[in-house]
Amino acid sequence: MIKAVFLIQCPDSKGILAAITEFFSKRDFNILHCQQHTDSYEQHFFMRIEVDASDMKTSRKALEDEFSTLAERFKLDWSCYWSDKKTRMAILVSKTAHCLYDLLARQLEGELDAEIPLIISNHPDLERVANQFRIPFYCFPMDEGKEKQEEKVRALLRKFDIDLVVLARYMQILSGSFIDEWKGKIINIHHAFLPAFQGANPYLRAYERGVKMIGATAHYASEDLDQGPIIEQDVIRVNHELTPAGLKEIGKDSEKRVLAAAVKAHLEHRVIIYKNRTIVFSVER
Amino acid sequence: MIKAVFLIQCPDSKGILAAITEFFSKRDFNILHCQQHTDSYEQHFFMRIEVDASDMKTSRKALEDEFSTLAERFKLDWSCYWSDKKTRMAILVSKTAHCLYDLLARQLEGELDAEIPLIISNHPDLERVANQFRIPFYCFPMDEGKEKQEEKVRALLRKFDIDLVVLARYMQILSGSFIDEWKGKIINIHHAFLPAFQGANPYLRAYERGVKMIGATAHYASEDLDQGPIIEQDVIRVNHELTPAGLKEIGKDSEKRVLAAAVKAHLEHRVIIYKNRTIVFSVER
Amino acid sequence: MIKAVFLIQCPDSKGILAAITEFFSKRDFNILHCQQHTDSYEQHFFMRIEVDASDMKTSRKALEDEFSTLAERFKLDWSCYWSDKKTRMAILVSKTAHCLYDLLARQLEGELDAEIPLIISNHPDLERVANQFRIPFYCFPMDEGKEKQEEKVRALLRKFDIDLVVLARYMQILSGSFIDEWKGKIINIHHAFLPAFQGANPYLRAYERGVKMIGATAHYASEDLDQGPIIEQDVIRVNHELTPAGLKEIGKDSEKRVLAAAVKAHLEHRVIIYKNRTIVFSVER
Amino acid sequence: MIKAVFLIQCPDSKGILAAITEFFSKRDFNILHCQQHTDSYEQHFFMRIEVDASDMKTSRKALEDEFSTLAERFKLDWSCYWSDKKTRMAILVSKTAHCLYDLLARQLEGELDAEIPLIISNHPDLERVANQFRIPFYCFPMDEGKEKQEEKVRALLRKFDIDLVVLARYMQILSGSFIDEWKGKIINIHHAFLPAFQGANPYLRAYERGVKMIGATAHYASEDLDQGPIIEQDVIRVNHELTPAGLKEIGKDSEKRVLAAAVKAHLEHRVIIYKNRTIVFSVER
Repeated sequence: MIKAVFLIQCPDSKGILAAITEFFSKRDFNILHCQQHTDSYEQHFFMRIEVDASDMKTSRKALEDEFSTLAERFKLDWSCYWSDKKTRMAILVSKTAHCLYDLLARQLEGELDAEIPLIISNHPDLERVANQFRIPFYCFPMDEGKEKQEEKVRALLRKFDIDLVVLARYMQILSGSFIDEWKGKIINIHHAFLPAFQGANPYLRAYERGVKMIGATAHYASEDLDQGPIIEQDVIRVNHELTPAGLKEIGKDSEKRVLAAAVKAHLEHRVIIYKNRTIVFSVER
Repeated sequence: MIKAVFLIQCPDSKGILAAITEFFSKRDFNILHCQQHTDSYEQHFFMRIEVDASDMKTSRKALEDEFSTLAERFKLDWSCYWSDKKTRMAILVSKTAHCLYDLLARQLEGELDAEIPLIISNHPDLERVANQFRIPFYCFPMDEGKEKQEEKVRALLRKFDIDLVVLARYMQILSGSFIDEWKGKIINIHHAFLPAFQGANPYLRAYERGVKMIGATAHYASEDLDQGPIIEQDVIRVNHELTPAGLKEIGKDSEKRVLAAAVKAHLEHRVIIYKNRTIVFSVER
Repeated sequence: MIKAVFLIQCPDSKGILAAITEFFSKRDFNILHCQQHTDSYEQHFFMRIEVDASDMKTSRKALEDEFSTLAERFKLDWSCYWSDKKTRMAILVSKTAHCLYDLLARQLEGELDAEIPLIISNHPDLERVANQFRIPFYCFPMDEGKEKQEEKVRALLRKFDIDLVVLARYMQILSGSFIDEWKGKIINIHHAFLPAFQGANPYLRAYERGVKMIGATAHYASEDLDQGPIIEQDVIRVNHELTPAGLKEIGKDSEKRVLAAAVKAHLEHRVIIYKNRTIVFSVER
Repeated sequence: MIKAVFLIQCPDSKGILAAITEFFSKRDFNILHCQQHTDSYEQHFFMRIEVDASDMKTSRKALEDEFSTLAERFKLDWSCYWSDKKTRMAILVSKTAHCLYDLLARQLEGELDAEIPLIISNHPDLERVANQFRIPFYCFPMDEGKEKQEEKVRALLRKFDIDLVVLARYMQILSGSFIDEWKGKIINIHHAFLPAFQGANPYLRAYERGVKMIGATAHYASEDLDQGPIIEQDVIRVNHELTPAGLKEIGKDSEKRVLAAAVKAHLEHRVIIYKNRTIVFSVER
């Protein structure tokens, strides 16, 4: 079955929901999933609609053009994804393997609907993991300077026609222009329950502050470090028995789960960004 | 603002969503919330739609009649609730006070949108709590026999024009005919994570089985004990340090929270029963 | 049964555990519970030991004196609590009732082993709740100035021989000298997952930051606002459907639970403060 | 550092704790961790004590002999583990890879202190995973009959000098004699929150029952299917949007986490079995 997903947002007004469902209903599409949310605080409308596009009478171009006309009327901000176009995802890592292992195993097992054409790192350490999964590994150390290193990374992302960049414990801060180019297409995992413990060494700081839960946060990268729209968070209960090293080890479980859930939501086109927040729709599965 | 909530279910078919949203859109209603869910496994469609009915041009009767016509076409099973008709809720208890306190405090604080005209018990113990909250308390002990006692309870429920019966740790099994009369309108709290530990003494049995989490389950009462449709569940992590008495004490927190959440979902007309399951819609709040 | 609880901390060294257990064993005490924790990061030793003191041969004074000798040898910092001396707890509130209701119901039900001789507020609103539970209510508005108001509060705490002050959503910042006088004896509930969202309006800020979980934190009050040692925390998963008002309502559940758990741990003499952290021992129950 | 862990249980009596701590203290051992628990309901004493054995004056044999004398006096049931003897762990699988991937990645990353000399399966499917991690893979299909197949498995376990058998979604029921031989040394993951949904197809049955949380349970295998002592459990909140297939996919996260936590507790000698329950000590890390 070929499916199309439309992600839509606009200022709220009467009749939007009916207009959009009618649009697909009149064209005899079967609506597989439809979620809508109206944020009454922001007076903003959000929608995800997934239709069966197997027996489409018109071309995709024609459908999108017709939808554009509707979109103009209601000032919709929208995007459309077709299920036969797989997302191409690059993973950036440094020395820590747990998130990388988790993503690769999930992708192999069919949990993540994406191709992973390459893994990029600033350290050689995880080449062994890439090899285990037979994925090309590129190592660009920071020796030659941050700017040059980033240029190489960005060139490679373009060359491989990448749609999504996942920072799976990549311990480098990306430049503003990198983030600008990839706005809404870089997912980072931060090893703390943001906005608590932004920046470096969150587990040590969590220890010193004596918190009773530690967490992890997956978010879209933004220019302000650790300030981008949050996609997913989770926490683990801890107690006085954990040293900073213990918190770090325990925290890995949270990081893996949170990053995988965020990547999955993105790959399934369930995330809409509005201001600095995300609407993450759930769907029947 | 006067609001109307429609709860709808029917076998899935093309165009339902558009037809229903159009129904309200054409009549110029503002749709406040709309959730729909299609269960692909059961091929069944569920919907909750909440509209602003303040400036309605027609009578409620007329609207419902018109909706009936639509309903026939799609074989909709539906019900409609108007926000100016408050649910009248009776609470049945035995000797344990924690759920009762919690419900009464929440209702007073405006968290539960219901009137509580009376509390009924088979023991005199909790009259003191009813008095604290100035709610009439009726005590019908079991001495005179279960049948007679139930008759009195049921007479009172009818007399007070009750819409919802909440069993807040009422330690009596209701008869089949009682449950029949009140199908889908009795919410019970079971002090275990159903279907584990159905029946009596769940905490002792949880101790003996050595489980690492205990829970609570709020469900609609059914003729088969502890088998009715589940509305809400929760668990608490426990360890070897808890004796059966300790589990019981800790479990109270779960019971309170789960029962309150289930009652709230029911009062907000967010629950649809299908077979032995519930669809519990969430809404913006 | 009369019980004695010893809370002990000291720099770690060989033989402490054996020395302390021997101390009680030689005097033929039955050790009911014994928890010890060595923080290898801080090289510090913590212990809670609870003994059956029903058939004590010597006076309490004599026992404490003998323990002092041991304490000097190992440089123990310690305190001792006797189960027949009930903690006297004052509750300070403003306008929000949910934590107050929860604490009062738990105390009545025997969950909190404390006397509650009075409730103090800077607003008259919650007098009705105090009346429901027949607890004296004192209202000191802020009109006459913060300093005078605090003096009256402190005079009352002394007059009633209070051991523990619980700030159950008391929306006033206590002065440094108040906190100094009551160091380690004031428990506050903050309606956020500290250190995230310190200060005012945490729910609004949580909404704007788009977090996917909200929380609550119970901590000992310290001079630096919201910086004191954390006793208990918890979080609730939220999503885009919650407005700031919705977060606030949902968050109440967390606040109640977290504050009650922290107060309970304190009343059961299970908390040791070290630097800005707490060791919270669990015990068989 | 060489460490020794003693796991001890016995009927409770006065002075045990002091006697054991004194035993190690007199011999000038540094006690690294000491946890004790007295189950007042069962009147039973449990203890885990971990000591630094680097500078031991006597032989291990001598120490264990001396401890035996103490053990006789208090009727201790005990075992002792030395940190330089690594646990040898066999993993049994069928066709599902997620738990296998998770265990292998954790072991490689140093989270699980064990050697994994082999993987055994009744299907050839997961040989690819074994190859990725360069671990010998043995496939014994069921064609030749259950008895013969089990014989081969057991012979291999003996040949490889295995200490612990982990059933990582091995979809065969082991014979009574197999389980007898390996009592307390086989850890199984069940894909439900036991005792709910014992036996086959738990996710389908969870769907049909309409539970609001699904779970996973790691337990020691026993002759009665799914009835052995539980080591670890966890749950995930679910809603009406999940079909049986969706529950199965979501549940994998729970299974991985729960199995890993249970295996880790076993490898760190933190688990004591008593009747059909486990005491799982936590330790500073």
